[in-house]
Amino acid sequence: MKVAKFGGTSLANAEQIKKVCSIVMADRDRRLVVVSAPGKRHKEDTKVTDLLISCANRFLQQQQAEEEKQAVFARYEEIIAELGLGEAVAEQIKSELDDVLSNRQGLSAERFMDAAKAAGEDTCAKIVAHYLRSLGEEASYVNPQDAGMLVSDEAGNAHVLPEAYAKLASLRERSGITVFPGFFGYAKSGELVTFSRGGSDITGSILAAAVTAEVYENFTDVDSVYVVNPNLIANPKEVKEITYREMRELSYSGFSVFHEEALIPAYEADIPVCIKNTNNPSAPGTMIVAERPFATNRVSGIASDSGFCSIYVSKYLMNKEIGFGRKLLQIFEEEGISYEHTPSGIDNISVILREKDLTEEKEKRIIERMFRELGADDVAVQHSLALVMIVGEGMRQSVGTTARATTALAAAKVNLEMINQGSSEVSMMFGVKAAEADRAVIALYQEFFGDEGETAAELLAASSAASVTV
Amino acid sequence: MKVAKFGGTSLANAEQIKKVCSIVMADRDRRLVVVSAPGKRHKEDTKVTDLLISCANRFLQQQQAEEEKQAVFARYEEIIAELGLGEAVAEQIKSELDDVLSNRQGLSAERFMDAAKAAGEDTCAKIVAHYLRSLGEEASYVNPQDAGMLVSDEAGNAHVLPEAYAKLASLRERSGITVFPGFFGYAKSGELVTFSRGGSDITGSILAAAVTAEVYENFTDVDSVYVVNPNLIANPKEVKEITYREMRELSYSGFSVFHEEALIPAYEADIPVCIKNTNNPSAPGTMIVAERPFATNRVSGIASDSGFCSIYVSKYLMNKEIGFGRKLLQIFEEEGISYEHTPSGIDNISVILREKDLTEEKEKRIIERMFRELGADDVAVQHSLALVMIVGEGMRQSVGTTARATTALAAAKVNLEMINQGSSEVSMMFGVKAAEADRAVIALYQEFFGDEGETAAELLAASSAASVTV
Repeated sequence: MKVAKFGGTSLANAEQIKKVCSIVMADRDRRLVVVSAPGKRHKEDTKVTDLLISCANRFLQQQQAEEEKQAVFARYEEIIAELGLGEAVAEQIKSELDDVLSNRQGLSAERFMDAAKAAGEDTCAKIVAHYLRSLGEEASYVNPQDAGMLVSDEAGNAHVLPEAYAKLASLRERSGITVFPGFFGYAKSGELVTFSRGGSDITGSILAAAVTAEVYENFTDVDSVYVVNPNLIANPKEVKEITYREMRELSYSGFSVFHEEALIPAYEADIPVCIKNTNNPSAPGTMIVAERPFATNRVSGIASDSGFCSIYVSKYLMNKEIGFGRKLLQIFEEEGISYEHTPSGIDNISVILREKDLTEEKEKRIIERMFRELGADDVAVQHSLALVMIVGEGMRQSVGTTARATTALAAAKVNLEMINQGSSEVSMMFGVKAAEADRAVIALYQEFFGDEGETAAELLAASSAASVTV
Repeated sequence: MKVAKFGGTSLANAEQIKKVCSIVMADRDRRLVVVSAPGKRHKEDTKVTDLLISCANRFLQQQQAEEEKQAVFARYEEIIAELGLGEAVAEQIKSELDDVLSNRQGLSAERFMDAAKAAGEDTCAKIVAHYLRSLGEEASYVNPQDAGMLVSDEAGNAHVLPEAYAKLASLRERSGITVFPGFFGYAKSGELVTFSRGGSDITGSILAAAVTAEVYENFTDVDSVYVVNPNLIANPKEVKEITYREMRELSYSGFSVFHEEALIPAYEADIPVCIKNTNNPSAPGTMIVAERPFATNRVSGIASDSGFCSIYVSKYLMNKEIGFGRKLLQIFEEEGISYEHTPSGIDNISVILREKDLTEEKEKRIIERMFRELGADDVAVQHSLALVMIVGEGMRQSVGTTARATTALAAAKVNLEMINQGSSEVSMMFGVKAAEADRAVIALYQEFFGDEGETAAELLAASSAASVTV
């Protein structure tokens, strides 16, 4: 049994839904199908989820949101009509949607918002099941509450409860194709709660783990995961196989193919994940697995993310002071700031954190506390940093990967503010000025993936050629 | 006014003391002289301080230590005789020493030990003052209590009290040459307390700061500080000028020219320190200063120290858990373990610490606590690590130092377990297996200080040639 999840662009219109259904029908093992809400049909389009959010917001503010509701209806009506599902289906779908969107039913604002958002996936799942039946398939929509998708009671940020897995396991026993709406579950109290945005990936992963699927297929709109951001490098190399850990490290630093939390259930149940393209299903895609042979490629990918800053603290003989590091980190904890890394010298330590977490007020207070509570000699904040990362399970086993990387960066005149290597066996991280991040990624791509004789300028994607100097 | 401190080998016998006095007399600004206890006269000799410790231990255990006491007397008698100071001086010195060593005077064991140890420096200072007078100089011994060397009440590990500086400042007003015994001071209660071993360097630094000396001259038995351990590399390059920070970083990783704590008073009062050779006083020596021009040498030195280990902890999505790092470090604090560095990946962190601090029992308990209290997925301990360090203030300002270093290490087939760069602007640290540390240091020396065409094998000191494969 395979679990196949389809993203928003795969369900954006009737044509796409037809592709989805033909993919499902092409493999009898694809018996559990998870769907997102219809996404953008073209670049300027609005996702159904965003329409639903506008609608709910307006309803909450003014108690009426007819225009927004009609926009949502219109999307589904068009799909239903083009799929030829008939008036009766259209009426039923519309009425069920209207029930959710026009009737607050005593729900709190955030509960109402969650219910409205979830209607996007829920409606889509019903339509897909209808369409599969219209093609002669045995197919049924299942409601996450009936199926046992129990989640924590955190509006907009639910987490699956451990007891959900045993209940969901019985989905295995259903005959025909089951269509399951992604993105939400139900709290023990019976109220609907959504995962964080993009959470249909999480639903698919939970189901794959619960039914111990042979594979969790995640259909999106790219042929595979690429070793580097394709907006930066034109036609980059594809990743054929990558481990969960590599994927996790890449997603940390700007890779956004797959929802970060979505890997956990699959990882814990050891279910391989396959990223495939709805628009080109015969392409092999990218396999995310527990282990891979290193020989094929030591480095799996290169990523970067900006928006970091560092707070440097020095104090003579800090090194001899038991508890200094703990006290330092406690200040960040008390300020509610999650930090990323803490590279240290002998008598100094830097705390790397996300710039968005450091308001001007917190920055001022932290600096003041470091002098007052820690007796720091010197405190300095550096803004606008980027982290550039090379990820690869096989990397650490080969002498010289660091040398190749740092030599390539030096040749590209990238100054290294920080190097973090030593804990993870999977990645090597370089802190650089945000303005130099693209140049760093290009230099590393050229070193580890470039073809002989290819220049950095030739590697650039059209979209980045104008803005990056190499 | 200059403060000149002379180490144990500079005072090991009469001949050395004559050199010391001629150095002092050669510069009228050398008005404050700090002396250690006589050190080893040859490789198999015993330092007077060690004789005193044996004597005190024996006295504490058995209430008599005649043989050990005579060994101490013998060292000083020989010196006094060869300096021609006469019987009266010899008798007085001996009687004062005997007072300390044969009379516990109600002192606790550790107080008695401190008093016995301090007698080495104290006696030496008296002899040097006698000898200077015998040469016609105006010279006087001063007792640290009379001079105001107030220290904390920590036997064997005293720290100077802030109020000492104002009192000691009046040493400036004394006429002639003042000879000051190193290594000890007095608590407010009036009891004698010693600094940590090698603490005469600290005395000199405190005095230099107190009298705002133009320079603190530290005379030892080498012409200068070398850029690398001369036991490993034959005739290494000399360091002409180095900053306090560079020196501190080097002393962390195995450089032992200068007592680690001794730099602080000089550093805080911005007194330059000059390391000079008693046996070759015309050599310029090494200057330790607040700032130096980078252009001369970007890298100041290379050092390594073994005896480290790392504890690796991983936990999926650790990165999102506010307070994880603080809780981790709290465990080490509660176990009374000071850690050195904490390189981190996305979902993992390693704690680097000194192996001597991690007993088998503590290791077991820490691992257990990491699983139980932190919910770690995986914990792994790696023993026998060394830290290899390149130190240089100018390093960070030049693109490519990291590349040069890592390329040299890769060429020498050194596998990097860890790289720590990013907080200190002064150093770059590589974690390697202890067995590869010498090879790493040699490769780095060759890269940053080697002459063209010189092979690694040619660089080796005779003492290391047999044991290191390059």
